Amino acid sequence: MTTETEAVMDGADLATFLTGKLCHDFISPAGAIASGLDLINDPSAQDMREEAMGLIATSSEKLIALISFARVAYGAATTAERFSADALQPLAESVFKGARASLDWQVETSEFAKPQARALLNLAQLTGAALPGGGTATVTAREQNGWLTLRGEADGPRARLKPEAAKGLAGERLTEGLAGQWIQSYWLWRTVTDHGGTLGFTVGENRVTLTARLPM
Amino acid sequence: MTTETEAVMDGADLATFLTGKLCHDFISPAGAIASGLDLINDPSAQDMREEAMGLIATSSEKLIALISFARVAYGAATTAERFSADALQPLAESVFKGARASLDWQVETSEFAKPQARALLNLAQLTGAALPGGGTATVTAREQNGWLTLRGEADGPRARLKPEAAKGLAGERLTEGLAGQWIQSYWLWRTVTDHGGTLGFTVGENRVTLTARLPM
Repeated sequence: MTTETEAVMDGADLATFLTGKLCHDFISPAGAIASGLDLINDPSAQDMREEAMGLIATSSEKLIALISFARVAYGAATTAERFSADALQPLAESVFKGARASLDWQVETSEFAKPQARALLNLAQLTGAALPGGGTATVTAREQNGWLTLRGEADGPRARLKPEAAKGLAGERLTEGLAGQWIQSYWLWRTVTDHGGTLGFTVGENRVTLTARLPM
Repeated sequence: MTTETEAVMDGADLATFLTGKLCHDFISPAGAIASGLDLINDPSAQDMREEAMGLIATSSEKLIALISFARVAYGAATTAERFSADALQPLAESVFKGARASLDWQVETSEFAKPQARALLNLAQLTGAALPGGGTATVTAREQNGWLTLRGEADGPRARLKPEAAKGLAGERLTEGLAGQWIQSYWLWRTVTDHGGTLGFTVGENRVTLTARLPM
């Protein structure tokens, strides 16, 4: 039997999972930059110079995009209190760059408070992550009667939620499987429910939907 | 009057502070890499090419060192359960690279469990941060009667603790000042006290000491 208290993750654990995820995300482009530099310094690989510079440039862009995304999606840039949809769109688009799925951004709401902005970015990325075979992640945001509804529709071949992601979206702690596949969906659930909202998802053939409702 | 419950930071807040700090730490070398690439692509700055490549190389090293440090200091690399002193030393040394203070690593204990390793790295970096005018950060670790004592001695001109750091080391929430100056010291306090230990500090002329005691 699991009590409510046990089910909610305590402060330090949540923080270590999240920072672990960030380090994992960031080390890949940072390592690629180092590999590019190694190539450039390798006298036997001088014909790869241009390729190496390209790798460094692409990885540097990717890294800066990841950090900028993370500041709002996890760290919620402590200085800004509100975020415009126009400022959030490029952050959401940046994590789709190089991915097989494309983002269809249908956000009508023009301004978001911090938790809502955080939820929107995580929902967008998780919708894209449900599309390993490519497809379209349609993200909508609508206000009605003081409530904000955020919706992510993943449409594409083999659209699916990994078991760890489904557990996280249901607010369940990870008992087995990979923490890296779980933490972001759990973080979305925490962000939404900590602010008085609800989170749901459906999985159908070639389609996954995520729906978050939050008070404005 | 502050109750115990109010004083302890909840999970999501702690996580956003920490990830915010990480993003802040990482964006500086990532931005320097991008600046280096801009210089290389600027036709009017071709005489700066070598300098630009040097900037990219140094920043890439710094970034990888920061991420490697953060994985253990915050994220506590979820796969490893124990850390050898030999594995922790280069991580601690890496954050002193380019700093005015130097690290004197006097660690006798050979192996650390996760929270102890996390405490040691944060204590080492915070000891160095107390030395804006340079000096020596001596870090010792000793086991006795089932307890581990970690000690950081900052000796140097103008050794001091910023008010935010002192607040964090005392386990107090930030009420004013810069979160970036506070979060790591609060995190050290949390790491130590969450695992049944105690944390103390003293500030004297040209000397700051941090002492953590944790059960093994």
